[in-house]
Amino acid sequence: MLSNRKSGKQRLYGADSQLVDQEERRLDLGFGSTFTDPNSRLINKDGSINVTRTNTSFWDRVNLYNRLITMNWPSFFGVVLLLYFSENVVFACIYMLVGPEYLLGLDKVTDGSPLGQFWGAFFFSAQTLTTVGYGHISPSGYLVSAIAALESMIGLLAFALVTGLLYGRFSRPVAHIRFSTHALFAPYLDVNGWMFRIVHQRANQLIDVQVDVSLSRLETRPDGVRYRRYYNLELERNRVNFFPTNWTLVHPITPGSPLQQCTPDDLAESDAEFLILLRATDDTFSQVVHTRYSYRYDEVLWGRKFLPMLDGNQSGGALLDLAKLDDTVDAPLN
Amino acid sequence: MLSNRKSGKQRLYGADSQLVDQEERRLDLGFGSTFTDPNSRLINKDGSINVTRTNTSFWDRVNLYNRLITMNWPSFFGVVLLLYFSENVVFACIYMLVGPEYLLGLDKVTDGSPLGQFWGAFFFSAQTLTTVGYGHISPSGYLVSAIAALESMIGLLAFALVTGLLYGRFSRPVAHIRFSTHALFAPYLDVNGWMFRIVHQRANQLIDVQVDVSLSRLETRPDGVRYRRYYNLELERNRVNFFPTNWTLVHPITPGSPLQQCTPDDLAESDAEFLILLRATDDTFSQVVHTRYSYRYDEVLWGRKFLPMLDGNQSGGALLDLAKLDDTVDAPLN
Amino acid sequence: MLSNRKSGKQRLYGADSQLVDQEERRLDLGFGSTFTDPNSRLINKDGSINVTRTNTSFWDRVNLYNRLITMNWPSFFGVVLLLYFSENVVFACIYMLVGPEYLLGLDKVTDGSPLGQFWGAFFFSAQTLTTVGYGHISPSGYLVSAIAALESMIGLLAFALVTGLLYGRFSRPVAHIRFSTHALFAPYLDVNGWMFRIVHQRANQLIDVQVDVSLSRLETRPDGVRYRRYYNLELERNRVNFFPTNWTLVHPITPGSPLQQCTPDDLAESDAEFLILLRATDDTFSQVVHTRYSYRYDEVLWGRKFLPMLDGNQSGGALLDLAKLDDTVDAPLN
Amino acid sequence: MLSNRKSGKQRLYGADSQLVDQEERRLDLGFGSTFTDPNSRLINKDGSINVTRTNTSFWDRVNLYNRLITMNWPSFFGVVLLLYFSENVVFACIYMLVGPEYLLGLDKVTDGSPLGQFWGAFFFSAQTLTTVGYGHISPSGYLVSAIAALESMIGLLAFALVTGLLYGRFSRPVAHIRFSTHALFAPYLDVNGWMFRIVHQRANQLIDVQVDVSLSRLETRPDGVRYRRYYNLELERNRVNFFPTNWTLVHPITPGSPLQQCTPDDLAESDAEFLILLRATDDTFSQVVHTRYSYRYDEVLWGRKFLPMLDGNQSGGALLDLAKLDDTVDAPLN
Repeated sequence: MLSNRKSGKQRLYGADSQLVDQEERRLDLGFGSTFTDPNSRLINKDGSINVTRTNTSFWDRVNLYNRLITMNWPSFFGVVLLLYFSENVVFACIYMLVGPEYLLGLDKVTDGSPLGQFWGAFFFSAQTLTTVGYGHISPSGYLVSAIAALESMIGLLAFALVTGLLYGRFSRPVAHIRFSTHALFAPYLDVNGWMFRIVHQRANQLIDVQVDVSLSRLETRPDGVRYRRYYNLELERNRVNFFPTNWTLVHPITPGSPLQQCTPDDLAESDAEFLILLRATDDTFSQVVHTRYSYRYDEVLWGRKFLPMLDGNQSGGALLDLAKLDDTVDAPLN
Repeated sequence: MLSNRKSGKQRLYGADSQLVDQEERRLDLGFGSTFTDPNSRLINKDGSINVTRTNTSFWDRVNLYNRLITMNWPSFFGVVLLLYFSENVVFACIYMLVGPEYLLGLDKVTDGSPLGQFWGAFFFSAQTLTTVGYGHISPSGYLVSAIAALESMIGLLAFALVTGLLYGRFSRPVAHIRFSTHALFAPYLDVNGWMFRIVHQRANQLIDVQVDVSLSRLETRPDGVRYRRYYNLELERNRVNFFPTNWTLVHPITPGSPLQQCTPDDLAESDAEFLILLRATDDTFSQVVHTRYSYRYDEVLWGRKFLPMLDGNQSGGALLDLAKLDDTVDAPLN
Repeated sequence: MLSNRKSGKQRLYGADSQLVDQEERRLDLGFGSTFTDPNSRLINKDGSINVTRTNTSFWDRVNLYNRLITMNWPSFFGVVLLLYFSENVVFACIYMLVGPEYLLGLDKVTDGSPLGQFWGAFFFSAQTLTTVGYGHISPSGYLVSAIAALESMIGLLAFALVTGLLYGRFSRPVAHIRFSTHALFAPYLDVNGWMFRIVHQRANQLIDVQVDVSLSRLETRPDGVRYRRYYNLELERNRVNFFPTNWTLVHPITPGSPLQQCTPDDLAESDAEFLILLRATDDTFSQVVHTRYSYRYDEVLWGRKFLPMLDGNQSGGALLDLAKLDDTVDAPLN
Repeated sequence: MLSNRKSGKQRLYGADSQLVDQEERRLDLGFGSTFTDPNSRLINKDGSINVTRTNTSFWDRVNLYNRLITMNWPSFFGVVLLLYFSENVVFACIYMLVGPEYLLGLDKVTDGSPLGQFWGAFFFSAQTLTTVGYGHISPSGYLVSAIAALESMIGLLAFALVTGLLYGRFSRPVAHIRFSTHALFAPYLDVNGWMFRIVHQRANQLIDVQVDVSLSRLETRPDGVRYRRYYNLELERNRVNFFPTNWTLVHPITPGSPLQQCTPDDLAESDAEFLILLRATDDTFSQVVHTRYSYRYDEVLWGRKFLPMLDGNQSGGALLDLAKLDDTVDAPLN
């Protein structure tokens, strides 16, 4: 997936230019080579990407549906409640302007004061918008009847919208993956490895889980210009069929690895960031889910290894303890 | 699909370490090698995986949407009914606390006793929540009117939710595959084969059906430690374009098969389990569906073969008898 | 796609058995070799497959959601109307049993006869089920109020269901492909070809359209047993990126083709059927759509070729005439 | 993706015919070679394809669901409002025909004139259709009650439909990609390149973005007939994992490129059009999105290059200015 070349296509004619050839082989994840500020990361901890946009159009900035789908639940219900309240205020004002006397029965439930009438109109509006329509207040006259007819239709449309949004929110494919707080440089077999650990937080199954890891770091051109370069980090295993327990992903530091001979100072000096892309299929809905994550140089521990999270010799099935995700122990590097 | 190597990527640099190389070639489905309890299976008969989790967060444990989508229909309607009843009880209490005298018309439908008033408030709440709003009971006063306005909105939101859940339940991709109760060791052409039989229980079509089978068994390390090892079982045919009838999947036991020379005692001693993964496309909705299944050593018959389920020479189309799925007959092994 | 071999997997060990090897190379689309009745086709003209099932369980036979989604619109609305009517009859009976005197206002809208009361209860039920609740008839007494509360909830659930079904019906991925009535044996470049023509009937775009064609015919084993065999028919072009106009799919009859030297009598005698599988992506919804079709030996014309459907030299865009799909003209074979 | 050959299939037998072989190698995107009118483009600026259809059936022409999903929002709400109004007019007429005296309470809200009664019936219809059912007007008599019962059910069905349509509109996968107004012939490394620039207008992420570019131009057969031919344009990079900023797509004009030695006059004379296909995955919903675009010969600039849009050295993340998408500067070609 992290291919820096054309995918699935044979080359139709040779590129005679040496420079073109070189450029085609350069790995580019889509960030470009100009992200050189050492104080900011490429991928934030929530998976978002660290780019600000200016001069976008109004609707692009609002990004309405996207925002309503991804905001948290309290905000969402807050928005719904606010809209419900505002809509009723607007319609109550309209009914007051046309004349409260067209709302039959209003006099029986209010004290006749303008404020009382306003709230009466407000509650009539709410009963119309939700189509509850008790009828102890009812519209009369062409204009008020027409406004009420319009309002009840708007109400149905609004709740149709909310129905769609609620379904969209629920059915949105999200991977509940937890990443270990730190990545580790640990001994691995007869060499060392760079590794991190993940676990699926939910009990339903993820299948066909695939992970790609890249190293991004600043390097210096012969002319002294700093630029960002990207390396694919090969993993000992980058795909599993099932993901019922924890999974430790290991990049073995063998000759040829960009981390060969690397020291903590090297990582810090080059503003290194490890970029992680995970994709999987949620078994319940057969939906593809994606997750991004990144470790910066200061989120990496040297000479520690992970302790097991799974007790596989339990009768009645294996036992996975999610609280142990970050449990590590000292382990001198090879 | 059951690849134990990196998928779709060429190797960028050689792993000089022999151990790293070995590790990379080891097949791991994601269960790990520590599932060694001989009394429990990896995949349960319903396709779930035999792992228990501890220290998960509250919402991860509840897994609300997932649970509401996958529970059976009586439970689902039970939950809906219970919520409807509780919500009305809660609001009836609130109306009683504020004062039943604010519900106009309540006196006409009740005997005036507190219990009678409570049930009157309960039914008024139900009429508000469902927005039926007959109006023979109606709210008056600011507070009760506001509560009723809120309740009718909650009602609409709740039924919007139920609409989404119902659609989610119906449209969830599920493969209605039935597996034969036993897998068989049977004669196959001029060798023997390990085989099982499947059938799609529904009349709509599955297309592009693909099956992968692995053998999982305990083995012993040179140091005497028991660990779980996984083998891919090659099938005579692992993919069909259509699946209108039954399908017998055969692993031919040719030289190189991990089942070569295997006896029933070997299977039992090594706690062998055959893991099956099926994926297909439901033709009606173009959805991908997945199914998992497993046969343990004690669900395998030796020297039996399947009897035909399909009569293909019927006029008016072939006839498939689903009751014959498990019909086998003695067949001495080669 | 019409692969008769394992997909995407390297062979881990050789099959020493010649028979196993042969069997693995046999093309099987999933129909099997026993469909030998010469009077029935494998794939019906509507794309369904000619297999009847017996001994299926009740719910598998009903296949409720699938049937409600795929039935035609008049039937669907018929079912909805029938359920609405029946539900009201049932509830009207219940209200009558409990006692029509608990429905306040019923006496004002009916003549007091039992039949009049029944219809009054029926309409009250309808007003409750749809939550319109005018209120000129209203429930009183615990039991009738409770039944009405239940009925209004059932009504909301039922219409939630219908909402989901309507969306499922509308959003179901369907390819509106029309196939030419006949396939042709026509001259093609310097050889002959077997060809048919398709067109997308809708104005929205299908992209990445891919077609696979197989020939199925009866052959005779050395022991005289008739069996069905399948051949993949290679196409001159089996994939296009866009499908804005018509598309003629051609199998060139070059040496090696199973149709080489084939005569009309050969086709008829062997009960030949050409099986077509099309898959594409609907551009509007990014959904994958599938279509199946088949031509039997008696739906093939010899020595005819297609006339053009498209006039590409129009100013203001090309003009495609769908009425010309079946227009052919005599063309002597090479 | 722009393959002019069979995908994913090995060749089973050789095509002995030279002509067949040649034809199989011809690139055809699905437009065919007869689009030869020099005044019209293949792909319009909105991504639609320039083909008109005649003799389509009524429902294929209407393409109802597709049209309701893709029309703009004002039109959509216009259609909904119009249907609501018309439906009420129709039912008001029916109620008037049966007799306004069957609508209880109608006399209290109208002046008794036929027009007044009509509007009363109209508003009663609206209150029934939306199920608001105040009840100050209510049906009596078998016929009017039955019509009202039917209308309230139709109302629920209609709003179920609208719910589905609204969700379909919102959840439809759309890529908000903006293309630079002009494509450029610019110096590129030590050669020249044909290039254009794209940016995602929304803040949510597109991942796995893949672009394919073809050149379509008129050529002349030896017999003097003009026909349209298609070339795949190889890109320096046709796939990125992330697309957070802008992306300049470059076809390097190396030997073998169909643009080698090409002049502005050549492009114009051959009615050249560059066809662009983009596909990506929307990260929020894991949906695949597609976009088509094209540049004609008169939308190409010679000897200009793009100015940067991204300032990557900002503290607090990179800054992308969308207003600079079309900023170019003179750059003499190599």
